[in-house]
Amino acid sequence: MTPLSGWGKRGEETLLASGRPALAAENPQPSSFEARLLAVGQAVGHHLSELLDEKSLPGEIARAPRLLNAMRHGSLNGGKRLRPFLTVEAARLCGFEGEGALRAGCAVELIHCYSLVHDDLPAMDDDDLRRGQPTVHKAYDEATAILAGDALLTLAFDVMADPATHPDPQVRADLVLGLARASGVGGMAGGQMFDLAAEAAAAPLGLDEIARLQAMKTGALLRYAVEAGAIVAKADSQARMRLVAYGKALGAAFQVADDILDAESTSAALGKKAGKDASRNKATLVQVLGLDEAKSRRDALAREAEEALAAFGPAAAVLIEAARFTAHRSS
Amino acid sequence: MTPLSGWGKRGEETLLASGRPALAAENPQPSSFEARLLAVGQAVGHHLSELLDEKSLPGEIARAPRLLNAMRHGSLNGGKRLRPFLTVEAARLCGFEGEGALRAGCAVELIHCYSLVHDDLPAMDDDDLRRGQPTVHKAYDEATAILAGDALLTLAFDVMADPATHPDPQVRADLVLGLARASGVGGMAGGQMFDLAAEAAAAPLGLDEIARLQAMKTGALLRYAVEAGAIVAKADSQARMRLVAYGKALGAAFQVADDILDAESTSAALGKKAGKDASRNKATLVQVLGLDEAKSRRDALAREAEEALAAFGPAAAVLIEAARFTAHRSS
Repeated sequence: MTPLSGWGKRGEETLLASGRPALAAENPQPSSFEARLLAVGQAVGHHLSELLDEKSLPGEIARAPRLLNAMRHGSLNGGKRLRPFLTVEAARLCGFEGEGALRAGCAVELIHCYSLVHDDLPAMDDDDLRRGQPTVHKAYDEATAILAGDALLTLAFDVMADPATHPDPQVRADLVLGLARASGVGGMAGGQMFDLAAEAAAAPLGLDEIARLQAMKTGALLRYAVEAGAIVAKADSQARMRLVAYGKALGAAFQVADDILDAESTSAALGKKAGKDASRNKATLVQVLGLDEAKSRRDALAREAEEALAAFGPAAAVLIEAARFTAHRSS
Repeated sequence: MTPLSGWGKRGEETLLASGRPALAAENPQPSSFEARLLAVGQAVGHHLSELLDEKSLPGEIARAPRLLNAMRHGSLNGGKRLRPFLTVEAARLCGFEGEGALRAGCAVELIHCYSLVHDDLPAMDDDDLRRGQPTVHKAYDEATAILAGDALLTLAFDVMADPATHPDPQVRADLVLGLARASGVGGMAGGQMFDLAAEAAAAPLGLDEIARLQAMKTGALLRYAVEAGAIVAKADSQARMRLVAYGKALGAAFQVADDILDAESTSAALGKKAGKDASRNKATLVQVLGLDEAKSRRDALAREAEEALAAFGPAAAVLIEAARFTAHRSS
């Protein structure tokens, strides 16, 4: 197996020298997961670009092109688009294949993108690079990056509430409410504060607290990305509960994998600074558990995600592979 | 007339030495407008405090009390609560007196509060004082202020989409969509970018461009505050159009009045730095039109707001007085 062919191969850890996905052409028989991830990722990029086109927006915005350009910089620079992929595939598993699932996924992705733009700011994580490119405040300036994050965050709710996402207003209101709860003070934003407080604290966090922090900071939005698919598909409560259980386990696995990646990887493979967790007193599961036990925990979480979908049978194969990919990804 | 009795008196300009509202007791016969503004303002403060209570939020947030405290600092420090007042009174004019109007108004106010927290940041307007108190980044730190703004913004959509705001999901989805459009890249956030770009530009803006900038930066949210009242009341399209016309004129009058206040007032009366517009190359209507013509424009806009509500008859008296107050306020 060459380094470029292994992106998302089940159960194996591989590193991509470029940090970018292997092209389908280099992998003669991509799994249905890989093919779907690429296809959804491209559709997401295309749709986000349309949402952030001057023509989609009111006339006055032409007078402030810098903001729109910064929003594009912060959201169209690649990435795996894992969150919208989860939304689209969860909806498909529940029998819904309309464009609304892509739009709901794009709204979740806009929240993810805003959080990266703000987290990279000098007052927060102070990162110059993101996916190998200058961060928004480096490419523009701090004020523009703050506003671009605010506007991406706001656009996410615009997209969710737009009738184009779903004809049923109950679905749209549910989508908005879930997104707000996953990303606000009780979810992602609260988790980021918790993380900054932990870095500044004298005593390191214990295992339970790290798990709680991670469940808020990254877990809540990943879980919700899956749940949004169930909402847009109007899935019954049992299907929705199973997907939420899957999303929770996947979200936890994602963050353990992130801690393992940070401890093991090089900056070139990650497209951002590696080893920075240890250098800044950031509490990680690897520090508390050690590398081997962290890997066991990660694998157990990936299995938990799989088991949550057992009742769906073979139709859940793509999401099950997504959980394995999430746990074993290389960037 | 003593300086403390004139808060909101129709057609007169008065300065309050303290910058705070006159108490009802000092004004033996408060107009129904003054009484309503005080009553709604108190209800808003109470409701925001409940929304930002640890008990209203998921358990984990207890682990990041700093964020919640910063959110409270940025939203419970007084202010006139003009936006939620407009929402509540517009709804009342359309026959709706339920708590949903207060909640919708609070959501608009949360957006206003987040914008102040972010606009005050060192990378933006760099203000140390807001309503006579340290700004959030001064009382806490920059990272906390960025996150507190993000979380207030997110909470606004949570409140709008919550079934407690209105039983009809169509109303909630409409409320969310309007709020997102008024505050995002085509509204408030775009206007702030436009403003920062104008400050940095070599040539000053012309009259039309200043009016456009102000319509985005402050006008869009004020207009929407009124429209939200029509939405939550399920007003017919004609009533909604009239209220939107009123809100547009009031929003424009608000900003001309702001420019006049900045040119005329002292810092003590404003509770923030005065005269700073001229000191930082900020384009204001006073600079372009001169003080007298700016006042004529303001008065014409206040009349335009009044005329938009003529068809409602005497029931619109409180909103008409609100337009006069907005044009002639002293802080």
